[in-house]
Amino acid sequence: MPQTISDNDSVVLTDEKGNKFIILIENKIQKIKGLGVYNPGDLIGKSYYEEITIGNRKFTVVEPSISDKIEAMERKAQIILPKDGMFILYHCNIKSGDKVIEAGIGSGALTILIANFIQPKGKVISYDKRDDHIKVAKKNLIRAGLSEFVEIKNGDVTAKIQEKDADSVIFDIPNPEDAIKSGYSALKLGGYLAVYTPTINQFERAVREMRNYGFGEIKTLETIQREMVVGPRGVRPSFNTLGHTGYITFDRRLI
Amino acid sequence: MPQTISDNDSVVLTDEKGNKFIILIENKIQKIKGLGVYNPGDLIGKSYYEEITIGNRKFTVVEPSISDKIEAMERKAQIILPKDGMFILYHCNIKSGDKVIEAGIGSGALTILIANFIQPKGKVISYDKRDDHIKVAKKNLIRAGLSEFVEIKNGDVTAKIQEKDADSVIFDIPNPEDAIKSGYSALKLGGYLAVYTPTINQFERAVREMRNYGFGEIKTLETIQREMVVGPRGVRPSFNTLGHTGYITFDRRLI
Amino acid sequence: MPQTISDNDSVVLTDEKGNKFIILIENKIQKIKGLGVYNPGDLIGKSYYEEITIGNRKFTVVEPSISDKIEAMERKAQIILPKDGMFILYHCNIKSGDKVIEAGIGSGALTILIANFIQPKGKVISYDKRDDHIKVAKKNLIRAGLSEFVEIKNGDVTAKIQEKDADSVIFDIPNPEDAIKSGYSALKLGGYLAVYTPTINQFERAVREMRNYGFGEIKTLETIQREMVVGPRGVRPSFNTLGHTGYITFDRRLI
Amino acid sequence: MPQTISDNDSVVLTDEKGNKFIILIENKIQKIKGLGVYNPGDLIGKSYYEEITIGNRKFTVVEPSISDKIEAMERKAQIILPKDGMFILYHCNIKSGDKVIEAGIGSGALTILIANFIQPKGKVISYDKRDDHIKVAKKNLIRAGLSEFVEIKNGDVTAKIQEKDADSVIFDIPNPEDAIKSGYSALKLGGYLAVYTPTINQFERAVREMRNYGFGEIKTLETIQREMVVGPRGVRPSFNTLGHTGYITFDRRLI
Repeated sequence: MPQTISDNDSVVLTDEKGNKFIILIENKIQKIKGLGVYNPGDLIGKSYYEEITIGNRKFTVVEPSISDKIEAMERKAQIILPKDGMFILYHCNIKSGDKVIEAGIGSGALTILIANFIQPKGKVISYDKRDDHIKVAKKNLIRAGLSEFVEIKNGDVTAKIQEKDADSVIFDIPNPEDAIKSGYSALKLGGYLAVYTPTINQFERAVREMRNYGFGEIKTLETIQREMVVGPRGVRPSFNTLGHTGYITFDRRLI
Repeated sequence: MPQTISDNDSVVLTDEKGNKFIILIENKIQKIKGLGVYNPGDLIGKSYYEEITIGNRKFTVVEPSISDKIEAMERKAQIILPKDGMFILYHCNIKSGDKVIEAGIGSGALTILIANFIQPKGKVISYDKRDDHIKVAKKNLIRAGLSEFVEIKNGDVTAKIQEKDADSVIFDIPNPEDAIKSGYSALKLGGYLAVYTPTINQFERAVREMRNYGFGEIKTLETIQREMVVGPRGVRPSFNTLGHTGYITFDRRLI
Repeated sequence: MPQTISDNDSVVLTDEKGNKFIILIENKIQKIKGLGVYNPGDLIGKSYYEEITIGNRKFTVVEPSISDKIEAMERKAQIILPKDGMFILYHCNIKSGDKVIEAGIGSGALTILIANFIQPKGKVISYDKRDDHIKVAKKNLIRAGLSEFVEIKNGDVTAKIQEKDADSVIFDIPNPEDAIKSGYSALKLGGYLAVYTPTINQFERAVREMRNYGFGEIKTLETIQREMVVGPRGVRPSFNTLGHTGYITFDRRLI
Repeated sequence: MPQTISDNDSVVLTDEKGNKFIILIENKIQKIKGLGVYNPGDLIGKSYYEEITIGNRKFTVVEPSISDKIEAMERKAQIILPKDGMFILYHCNIKSGDKVIEAGIGSGALTILIANFIQPKGKVISYDKRDDHIKVAKKNLIRAGLSEFVEIKNGDVTAKIQEKDADSVIFDIPNPEDAIKSGYSALKLGGYLAVYTPTINQFERAVREMRNYGFGEIKTLETIQREMVVGPRGVRPSFNTLGHTGYITFDRRLI
């Protein structure tokens, strides 16, 4: 039986055309982009998966999936897409309960993805040097209902990472080669380092630096994803392919 | 500080050449492929990440990552690789605590991957029609230290799925179109259906059947992954590319 | 020493921003899209690779490459890109002097490509059922300076192909399976058949039909092309990837 | 009507299993790999596309396509595959009658491809520093029936290219950046330069050097090709994908 909607829930409103709005339930009149002026608190007590009306538009309220949460994000910087983020999770062996350090937070897309998988007892510690990034990321984390699992710090990981014994350290910064040493010392024995880089030269420098620290088996991956369309004239790949995003490089601290 | 090795741990022995052996710690002399006759119980009480000697070979004992667990699997059937499995996790919104139904179990690769992410309170219920598959999958699950999160049933999901209110239902069977109806009725409202198929015709039939059930936004993806090599003459993609594996198709039960 | 520009030459005007205009030299005032009202005949007698001025804009006049000719085409229908067309050439063993039959002509992109390689003694015979396609294709062929190597016919290749002993027959029609038989009988012994199809179902039907005619080794290819960018922060694949175009299927008449 | 086989023809013998042997017709008993001791002169006067018997094996003799010629090559070095070579042809605007300079010749795969398209009046001038490469390439060119269109020189293109006014210059050497200047001066105005490189660093250095010479629009491409299989259970991409080969970079001499 479906739950009822409560204060502080993060919910998705979908209409028949597939439009999606992710909103945070709070008793406060606000302007919601695409929906107009509305008080989400009006939904408290209603049932998920039942039809509701806002203005003269009809919506179904559903619990947001991790995919909904990321699609609904406000984007200030280029985000790490789940296409790449899911392999950071896999190759860093991230699981419920982990302590993960990342830098920079950007708009918080990878942060949301990791927070989703380390909850309820794990923690993401996110560094960024820019207050405007931190502000957007915080807003996105709150709307995704995951902010309690994330601690954000304004700081430069190439200079210093305060934490020790992290399960994983993940860098999405322009110069990851300058942070390998501090990343290494923040990791527990057996912990994982991942580096996300748009260009080849960036991961090349990072890999050459990683090799100085006697890490494990260093590996760089590129992931390409295509959507397939089942159309009236048959099946084919989508005409709109996602272009390049980035490369992910992994290592494990074994010594 | 590193833990000590205990009875029933699943551990990885790695040598300097990067060879990996995943073994289950139990006090019993056994023949281990590539290692010879050995009693893993001899390792109880030793520390992880220290060097040990077996015969005249030196190894480091490390905690296995999910990637180690899947690489070390015994494979009887074609497995669902993490390249594809991680997107089943993502698009089915699988998380700690979920109840997931899958069929068939094959060698258990996807089972291990899902069990890793739904633990400690979630459950995977795996159906398969073949006892030889079930036997191999059980062995792989035990060695991966994840068998307690999986219930295996010999049964045909195209005929009937006993469970109700599953968070996700995942099919890797030759004729998924015949199981869409029973998959649908095993799902909770808001639950996810995923279909893995090697051929295009298989997912085409599945998609056309899904459309009869008023599911949500149906989507089919193909994922291609390339390893990049940082070599003496520069950086390039690997000469050995992974060929085709399969397509994954998703849907959500919204009505 | 560079040639001088003559009547009936097909030339490319390029400006410093990389804009390209392909025009046919004829002594006639005309409206040229992007250039305004101009008489290309004014260029007769000037040298290639020297700077000329039109209005207050400066251009260099260069001889058009096959790539310029195809990029400058007017497009009414979806064209076969050189990415795919070059492999039709290769696998159909098309060379100077060949007689090639194609249907439909569309906007003439493949026609231009083939005409470029079969000249000066070869011939392309192009069938299409639509006069609007034929009209656009003719215009594009004239502008590309290749119309003398092409004969265009309004006709339906699924009903009949008049020619015999063709070196190659190439189909880009919605139902190639219906034209395999007539394609086969238009080919010389040792000749090649190629089928271009946007969807998988189309080439599947064509392949199953080809197998009935005792052709040679049937092969279907998909070609994916990515541009690499050497940018200020390093090298990476382009963010704008070309999406799906089509599959090409080949066969050779051996009996 | 099929031709008869003549002295000096290059022919392909195919058996029912799809095995292919490319041989040069000459009246001389020789040992042919996979066929045994045989005098190809015995085939003179027989018809193409008729069945012949060698020992107790049955073959059909067919005219070799450019694809047959390249597949049948003896390979000493890594060859440039037609997958890449066809785009060198396209982007260098190579056509019947062209003068093309290439270095190094390697096993002659690209040489064969270009010779096929510049014949009968064009010329390929191939430089290589190694006599063992030249020896294998010569043998492959003779067997492909294309040696008369190729002139081979032992020389180092980074030091000097003797020719002037080439239509295209193509480099497949470890250090193309060192040959850009001499390549540039060997080109006619409007001519094309192409560089084939396995690694990213190699083309990055070449591109940065090209930019010093005021060339045209520099472009680097990677081509990925997949075979599709129409099998009993449906259509899918091949499980055996061709891995990385190389990148091709183009430019045009406009000043």
